[in-house]
Amino acid sequence: MRDAGGQTKIRGSGYEAWLGYPRQQFGGSTASDLEYYGALYIVEENETLQAAAQEYRRGMASMLGIAVANAAEPGGACVAIGTFQGGNERIQNVFDEQTIRAVGPEGYAIRKSRENHCIAVGASSPIGVLYGVFHLLRLAKTSTGNEAFDEVVNPANKLRMINHWDNFDGSIERGYAGHSFFYKHNRFLDNPQRLRDYARMMSSVGINAIAVNNVNVHEQETLFISPAYLPDISNIADIFRVYGIRLYLSVNFASPLQGGELGTADPLDPEVRSWWRGKAAGIYAAIPDFGGFVVKADSENRPGPFTYGRDHADGANMLAEALEPFGGLVIWRCFVYNCKQDWRDRKTDRARAAYDHFKPLDGRFHTNVILQIKNGPMDFQVREPVSPLFGALQQTNQVIEFQIAQEYTGQQRHVCYLVPQWKEVLEFNTYAKGEEDAPVKHVVDGSIWNNRYSGVAAVSNVGDDLNWTGHLLAQANLYGYGRLAWNPELSAECIAEEWARLTFGSDPAVLDTVTRILLDSWSIYESYTAPLGVGWMINPDHHYGPNVDGYEYSPWGTYHFADNRGMGVDRTVRSGTGYSAQYMGPNAERYESLEDCPDELLLFFHHVPYTHVLHSGKTVIQHIYDTHFEGAERAAELLASWQTLQGRMEEGLYLQVEERLLEQAEHAKEWRDKINTYFYRKSGIEDQQQRTIY
Amino acid sequence: MRDAGGQTKIRGSGYEAWLGYPRQQFGGSTASDLEYYGALYIVEENETLQAAAQEYRRGMASMLGIAVANAAEPGGACVAIGTFQGGNERIQNVFDEQTIRAVGPEGYAIRKSRENHCIAVGASSPIGVLYGVFHLLRLAKTSTGNEAFDEVVNPANKLRMINHWDNFDGSIERGYAGHSFFYKHNRFLDNPQRLRDYARMMSSVGINAIAVNNVNVHEQETLFISPAYLPDISNIADIFRVYGIRLYLSVNFASPLQGGELGTADPLDPEVRSWWRGKAAGIYAAIPDFGGFVVKADSENRPGPFTYGRDHADGANMLAEALEPFGGLVIWRCFVYNCKQDWRDRKTDRARAAYDHFKPLDGRFHTNVILQIKNGPMDFQVREPVSPLFGALQQTNQVIEFQIAQEYTGQQRHVCYLVPQWKEVLEFNTYAKGEEDAPVKHVVDGSIWNNRYSGVAAVSNVGDDLNWTGHLLAQANLYGYGRLAWNPELSAECIAEEWARLTFGSDPAVLDTVTRILLDSWSIYESYTAPLGVGWMINPDHHYGPNVDGYEYSPWGTYHFADNRGMGVDRTVRSGTGYSAQYMGPNAERYESLEDCPDELLLFFHHVPYTHVLHSGKTVIQHIYDTHFEGAERAAELLASWQTLQGRMEEGLYLQVEERLLEQAEHAKEWRDKINTYFYRKSGIEDQQQRTIY
Repeated sequence: MRDAGGQTKIRGSGYEAWLGYPRQQFGGSTASDLEYYGALYIVEENETLQAAAQEYRRGMASMLGIAVANAAEPGGACVAIGTFQGGNERIQNVFDEQTIRAVGPEGYAIRKSRENHCIAVGASSPIGVLYGVFHLLRLAKTSTGNEAFDEVVNPANKLRMINHWDNFDGSIERGYAGHSFFYKHNRFLDNPQRLRDYARMMSSVGINAIAVNNVNVHEQETLFISPAYLPDISNIADIFRVYGIRLYLSVNFASPLQGGELGTADPLDPEVRSWWRGKAAGIYAAIPDFGGFVVKADSENRPGPFTYGRDHADGANMLAEALEPFGGLVIWRCFVYNCKQDWRDRKTDRARAAYDHFKPLDGRFHTNVILQIKNGPMDFQVREPVSPLFGALQQTNQVIEFQIAQEYTGQQRHVCYLVPQWKEVLEFNTYAKGEEDAPVKHVVDGSIWNNRYSGVAAVSNVGDDLNWTGHLLAQANLYGYGRLAWNPELSAECIAEEWARLTFGSDPAVLDTVTRILLDSWSIYESYTAPLGVGWMINPDHHYGPNVDGYEYSPWGTYHFADNRGMGVDRTVRSGTGYSAQYMGPNAERYESLEDCPDELLLFFHHVPYTHVLHSGKTVIQHIYDTHFEGAERAAELLASWQTLQGRMEEGLYLQVEERLLEQAEHAKEWRDKINTYFYRKSGIEDQQQRTIY
Repeated sequence: MRDAGGQTKIRGSGYEAWLGYPRQQFGGSTASDLEYYGALYIVEENETLQAAAQEYRRGMASMLGIAVANAAEPGGACVAIGTFQGGNERIQNVFDEQTIRAVGPEGYAIRKSRENHCIAVGASSPIGVLYGVFHLLRLAKTSTGNEAFDEVVNPANKLRMINHWDNFDGSIERGYAGHSFFYKHNRFLDNPQRLRDYARMMSSVGINAIAVNNVNVHEQETLFISPAYLPDISNIADIFRVYGIRLYLSVNFASPLQGGELGTADPLDPEVRSWWRGKAAGIYAAIPDFGGFVVKADSENRPGPFTYGRDHADGANMLAEALEPFGGLVIWRCFVYNCKQDWRDRKTDRARAAYDHFKPLDGRFHTNVILQIKNGPMDFQVREPVSPLFGALQQTNQVIEFQIAQEYTGQQRHVCYLVPQWKEVLEFNTYAKGEEDAPVKHVVDGSIWNNRYSGVAAVSNVGDDLNWTGHLLAQANLYGYGRLAWNPELSAECIAEEWARLTFGSDPAVLDTVTRILLDSWSIYESYTAPLGVGWMINPDHHYGPNVDGYEYSPWGTYHFADNRGMGVDRTVRSGTGYSAQYMGPNAERYESLEDCPDELLLFFHHVPYTHVLHSGKTVIQHIYDTHFEGAERAAELLASWQTLQGRMEEGLYLQVEERLLEQAEHAKEWRDKINTYFYRKSGIEDQQQRTIY
């Protein structure tokens, strides 16, 4: 199922994702809408508007069987699209000044105007028009008919970014959907159609920034910013540009050393600063709208400013100065911790690391530096608390980093719809403004501290598998990420239902079942894996499958400390690592308190006996047994649910999901038995229900 | 330290191994011996005898500073070497008929004859002469002076084999000393000097058979028996032949299928039989003294006769018939077990597998088939019982398989002198002849059942590291294996001391310390790793370093079943897998009995509480704590001992061992702490001595 191949293979493959525009049964659009849909009025010629027009024609042809005409008659019924200043008189007639002012640089207005005989999509910029057209197509597909069609839509977040962890050799770090479609064997792949399809897909959910190479920048990739590779990078940027996406590169902090150009990468060294300024000039000569650099420095053996006795601010600001004249950004990752910890040492706490490193630097970063902070303090576990840096950094641009790639959540072999998790994080009140509500979503959208830059980033889950994401249902995470980045107010359920409708059409049985599978999936995955927020318990390196002690005696700072009496990590101030004090107000109190700490994070914050009674009324050990037995059962039920859909969708789509759900049902039993056996053997406590534990 | 490189790098590198012939201080040889040593008398011209002469000259030049002359004068003092039938009158004069009859095909006689003014080395065959010369050189180097020099020496074992697990790509499966010196990147290396040095080294300890490729025969290696590769294989055989070594190849049982030549590899199919006969003819046309095939079939996912509903005898006999006309052997490995076991299943017992598979086939194998049986029932653990197949197979040729490569015994980064382990195995009484003594050594030398073929085989520990074995002290295992294969009566101590003297010279401080390090090392390694015979507890795949649950939930059949009360595998007849009944007489009784089972194998045979009291008087848990604390201390002492030798040997030799002992001392602490912590956390039982456990 690699790469697009012949058109015959596309159908049922999942390649079209949510842009397949399945034929509608007129459930979605009234006859009067149809009157407008038949003709398109557009006067502007730039590539982005042409892409919008093309998308519109394609969608209508596929959904409604309409060959859209060019609206020739003045005043005839049509859909009109264009920028407010683009000379399209239908647009100018429909939108008043107030509306135009309300539309931001990437936003759009959409209005059905009977007097003007049109549905108009207007925007300040071409990309706004394209976003508006994607929205109109979504409405046509998902609406229940006869909407007023009058809204102004702006993205909540300025930066809506995807990070690729693609390597030049074609591998993808933590990739679960085949190989890279950018590179292979240290060459750029010549596959512009795939890139265009990808850009179009990303644009359809509002993505406006993509970093195209792994944050772990290896030897060859270090040269991406050199003349040797910039022409190829520029080709990718050309494709992205049409769809409103700026290209970013991950860079190696030690770049000046490679090839011996300089003898140091010290950020305060004038030669180093000059070297980077030269590089920036070269990049912008090739790619005038280049987005900027993503940097993983002094993290997991990557080079960084520490080598020279400098700090992260020194490092980031040096790069920021180089990019500043061109409007470029430095996105500096906060995933910094000691990855060579002694497992015997219970004082060092990896969870503390990002805060301890970056909180003291608040206010020291240049205005075009953005810190990229992972959603939790560890590393994308199925359950973690929210990173305490959110709210703590008040004078620093920041973006939150999610991981769409399911590294720790089933690797796209298990279904795990992550939007509910992201929603929880975004809604989390940081108490950064005391009594006033200060949820993470308003930290990252920049509204709380009026940051110049802000937004969201996420690690991509795509590869060259024909269906992009390996597991077809993992497309919902990619879709949902984009939609949520655009509008964090959307509910997880609404997004799931929307994705299902776009992907499978409007059969209520399909919509209902798929939505339910998605919404249940995170809870199911959590239930049969590491319990109560303690995390890890996976096989080292590849991170797939259960291994309770897999990281227990490792240098990675990831422990559960299970003994024959109990388990969990004491992160309290009273007797543990003091991590709970990194939170503000009621959060700090709640996590510190054994009584108040929420069950699902209990073992993240406290070391308790197996006999400790949860708020649920169960003991910890019985909770482990119960959730694992139930989790495996529920995983099996996912398969059974799916199997009710046979014949209700393209067979290719049906079969590929069935195959993965089968694997999940089997693998969930491995999880169940290994986790239960481990804790039964360790605790010696019998399951109250006397089920089989080995 | 790869490959030989310039001569300047050789000294102190360990490349010369035990054939460096360090200068002697006349400690070893009397003045009268020296009179003989100065001239060599040889009349035969074949390559092997010339190699013997060359070795003699080289050794004497190096050890005694003597440029050996050709003995020109009739009756002048000399060393005379030759075969009994070779026309050497000095040999004919010295040896009587009785002596000649006593010398077997590979043996030799050595005698100092004052009346004939010579030390004579005579043999039935050229290789016997070479063995005799190596012996004479050893005597000159290690003797305490003025020996009678009158002995007849024959090898105890007919087959004295080395198995290489080298792959054509240059990697070595379980290789810890660099890459292959046979192959690289799927080509044959052109390095005849290294091969000659290797053959000479192996010949010096009596090795007469070498299989040059991995028993896991991959795609390219499958073609080694084809005309494409036979010329290269033949080049290696030419080098080996001079040193009395027959070349063997590991073959892929499914060879006829590769390239689609045949549609089956069914051993009873006439076409398959004919195919192999053709292959055999081709091989022997290229290599007239080709040794035969080594076969790993139906084991760890290798193909075999089971695919066709046939058994091991069918498979082996088919190959045997193909080789029989040429005098070739089939060496069929008994390492057959279910490697896809469910860890939940406590009834299946991997330890039983070899016996259960092969005992019923006793008597069904052709006369040129040899079964190769690993020393223990599992897989070369630091401590296992002896395989119960020894003694059980009474009508079958067999060789014992040891592993010189330290896969599970420190991977040549820890010192672990294995000769004491092998000695224990060889001396083990199988009770196969009831009251009469029937030790393994007399099973494998063929004397108990008068087997046509018999002997020993072992997995090589060499690679292209300049010192051959990575750890210099691991050379003692290679040396010791050869010496023991020749003469199992030698003591481990004698071999250690002999190796040390040959390698480092005769400084008593060095000899004493090195010998002590070697003799202590197995016990030390055992003490800080998996306790009481239970084995495993290592990291999966690469097998280096501690991981108590590393194989606990795996499909490999390797479990310890530790829970909060106790641990061990119940292999008794009474309540376990019944494995103990595979032994005979008192062995079966001893292992079955919790009271009589030796401490060091307790957990191999019994599941006991941590509070079970050993014969030593300690509880199991206290034994674990004590041995692990002591083991790490003793590992540190190895380093300290070695450090007393600084300045007493070539610095290069000193430093390379010091570096490895340093790593061992550090890594032993990891073992200590991970094992102790695991069992402390699991049992909750305090160390009586209150030492730090994490």
